[in-house]
Amino acid sequence: MNIRLTLRILGALLLFLSAALLLPIPFSLYYNDGALPALLLASGVTLAVGLALFYFCRSQRELSLRDGFAIVTFGWVIYSLFGALPFIFSGAIPSSLDACFETMSGFTTTGATILVQVESLPKSLLLWRALTHWLGGMGIIVMSLAILPMLGVGGMQLFRAEVPGPTADRLKPRIQDTAKLLWGVYVLLTSAEVVLLMFGGMSFFDALCHAFATLATGGFSTRNASVGAYNSAYIDGVITLFMFLAGVNFSLHYQALRGRLGEFWRNEEFRVYLGVTLFATLAVMWFNHGTVYSSLFDNLRYSSFQVSSILTTTGFGTADYELWPVASQYLLVFLMFIGGCAGSTGGGIKVARMLLLFKHAHVQLFRLIHPRAVRLVKLGTMPVNHDVMQSILGFFALYMGIFVFASFLMAASGQDLVTAGTSVIATLGNIGPGLGMVGPTDHYGHVAPFGKGVLIVCMLLGRLELFTVLVLIFPTFWRK
Amino acid sequence: MNIRLTLRILGALLLFLSAALLLPIPFSLYYNDGALPALLLASGVTLAVGLALFYFCRSQRELSLRDGFAIVTFGWVIYSLFGALPFIFSGAIPSSLDACFETMSGFTTTGATILVQVESLPKSLLLWRALTHWLGGMGIIVMSLAILPMLGVGGMQLFRAEVPGPTADRLKPRIQDTAKLLWGVYVLLTSAEVVLLMFGGMSFFDALCHAFATLATGGFSTRNASVGAYNSAYIDGVITLFMFLAGVNFSLHYQALRGRLGEFWRNEEFRVYLGVTLFATLAVMWFNHGTVYSSLFDNLRYSSFQVSSILTTTGFGTADYELWPVASQYLLVFLMFIGGCAGSTGGGIKVARMLLLFKHAHVQLFRLIHPRAVRLVKLGTMPVNHDVMQSILGFFALYMGIFVFASFLMAASGQDLVTAGTSVIATLGNIGPGLGMVGPTDHYGHVAPFGKGVLIVCMLLGRLELFTVLVLIFPTFWRK
Repeated sequence: MNIRLTLRILGALLLFLSAALLLPIPFSLYYNDGALPALLLASGVTLAVGLALFYFCRSQRELSLRDGFAIVTFGWVIYSLFGALPFIFSGAIPSSLDACFETMSGFTTTGATILVQVESLPKSLLLWRALTHWLGGMGIIVMSLAILPMLGVGGMQLFRAEVPGPTADRLKPRIQDTAKLLWGVYVLLTSAEVVLLMFGGMSFFDALCHAFATLATGGFSTRNASVGAYNSAYIDGVITLFMFLAGVNFSLHYQALRGRLGEFWRNEEFRVYLGVTLFATLAVMWFNHGTVYSSLFDNLRYSSFQVSSILTTTGFGTADYELWPVASQYLLVFLMFIGGCAGSTGGGIKVARMLLLFKHAHVQLFRLIHPRAVRLVKLGTMPVNHDVMQSILGFFALYMGIFVFASFLMAASGQDLVTAGTSVIATLGNIGPGLGMVGPTDHYGHVAPFGKGVLIVCMLLGRLELFTVLVLIFPTFWRK
Repeated sequence: MNIRLTLRILGALLLFLSAALLLPIPFSLYYNDGALPALLLASGVTLAVGLALFYFCRSQRELSLRDGFAIVTFGWVIYSLFGALPFIFSGAIPSSLDACFETMSGFTTTGATILVQVESLPKSLLLWRALTHWLGGMGIIVMSLAILPMLGVGGMQLFRAEVPGPTADRLKPRIQDTAKLLWGVYVLLTSAEVVLLMFGGMSFFDALCHAFATLATGGFSTRNASVGAYNSAYIDGVITLFMFLAGVNFSLHYQALRGRLGEFWRNEEFRVYLGVTLFATLAVMWFNHGTVYSSLFDNLRYSSFQVSSILTTTGFGTADYELWPVASQYLLVFLMFIGGCAGSTGGGIKVARMLLLFKHAHVQLFRLIHPRAVRLVKLGTMPVNHDVMQSILGFFALYMGIFVFASFLMAASGQDLVTAGTSVIATLGNIGPGLGMVGPTDHYGHVAPFGKGVLIVCMLLGRLELFTVLVLIFPTFWRK
């Protein structure tokens, strides 16, 4: 471990955060919402700590790959701590734990909120809340497509195997270039959604906040009733579409913008993701038909929105799915485990991993009938590297293990079985709403402090693909 | 496929069943319960079909390993069909589907019952019901320790790696010898339990039925209130002990009877199984203390019984754990997934598989910090064969996939989320009681016919380690 250099880089990240904390200031001035001192103070404190770390921690030694785990994990942690300052300083969220929960939920693009009355927050803090999503989403895209693969954590390996064509056409491997290209796509899609939402009658402020939350698959809304408050089929449709797009591998969007639209279809993960979206929408419509929606249009509108929102792990709501038939609810819970595509801002286990798990199990069955046949697991046309497959299988076992252990801790803290289980999957999968006491019309404010701590850890673990956080608890990790 | 020879062997199995159907007759005569004609008719029909298959289906060709899958799977199916005849013929269970559910539940040692009033059944049919458990348990021991390993389905490979000592000391590999040795252990343990239960004041009949159900980790009782009806701490203790023993790899019992008691401790799976039992008992006692039980003795008595009953997948009850704190219930649900040791009569995923999944995930984490280090997954002191590990990982993915899919079907048939999920795990794990509408004081009689069908398939899949049944749905399996 090169602790000094790691601290220096974390300091640099804080400098960036202190600048980001100034972005809501124009809104604070425009709406005169009284949050200006809190924002300035938060930015100042973050700047001071950032500068101190950046200038006092220097090192001649190179950064090792191992430091990468610490930088990514602690980067998300300090962002959640310092990003919570405006909420604390302004008194908008009096409890520090609650404020950290809200910011961790923001930066991990989870969207689980402790707020009962979202609308009573100062406008500039609502924007900051949405901005934590958007910045978190940016971080995730770069992390999953450029940083984690260097550390050997699944994602890019799959992605590399999947993107066809000669080497020169591949996304440039260096972090900076990758970041610029993908952020360009990210900004473009966000801008497009802002414009389309404003066409639907949303104010610029609301459109901006909702676009930030959509592209990051976050889910924080500026309204108590989430997207349902606008009661507009057009707005529902636009957000459904952009949630779906946000759940797609961003490198495919980049390819599409370069005119290679065929890449979407050539990508097996995308095909499966599309198939799951369509199948789940139709299945939920089947169960909802006649029981909750009599009109086909309403059924399509609400079912497709909720399915996209849960599958992409966004967590926006336009309907209370706890009033839907149990089979529909069950499907949504299952979708919570799947999540978006690798290389998207979506959370969950990811479509590619689920697909490869299924293929691995299929190969095991096939081998029983044909013991001497050699059959490799492929994604698209490329065989999946053996180490990557082992890592995915380990990931799945760990994911289920953490789900079980954290749900137990929630049950021990006094939650009922459904609330305990779905609050964990809703945070571990970075979704937001679950069922029971944390359903789509509820919030997380009532969860006991111990439970909030558990869920904060779940959000971090889920967002950073488990391994990135868990390696830090190995004693050998810290040895020289 | 050698279909003719497969049918011939199934015929031979039916001949054995027709003889087994005569065993309850002395009890029918002694209690004069009126079930004699039904038993004779059932035995006669089974004999006739068995003879027809045995004599008319001959083949010169050898049995292939592939036929083994069909024989094991259809063996369990025809036993459940023909074993249901006494219930149908006597009118004790009027619905054929219900009767098949009950017999499948018996032969798979699940113990889920559709009966509302168990005590109103004729005595001889109660004995037959317990006997289905016991015969099923016998079948499972041989299947898991001798037949499945030949077919390449996990279990024996692990077991072989685990039992230490020179080759000559190993259990003789041939099915017949293995069967004789292990059945000897099985009969001995059953007899011991019968005697100990009779010391506690149970009638010979009740002691026999409960011993059959305990050693097979079945769970059918002769009383409506299950073991709780006897209200005896001594009986609870004896059954707790024998449930624990039934969840142990029977080859360890065999070694122990030969004086090698140290083998228990040298077996890593046993150590973990013991640890899980102790930890879960203490944890459940912790949560139950003061909330449901004020006396330490009562707490130990009821908590240890319920923990052993669920972990070993027996399903006997002495307390309504749905009245326990949610954390205790949650632990029980988690234990449902674990199950007993490989080579025991217990169901579930099995302790060894869970242990290896955990170790595999741990190795994946370790490799991130030490990319060039070679670290193998071991069970005890022996490294686990790569193919076996792949098979276990595939098994886990498949198990979770089937759990999710079957729970969805149950939810679609109108069950609530908790009932849908726990009815599936209670049958897939061959346990018996779940939570919600299928809790420890409930039964499965109210489940819709479609749901009963789903659960029957779950019992079969879980009992035959998934793969054995699933290979039959591959089209290539049936090709010459």
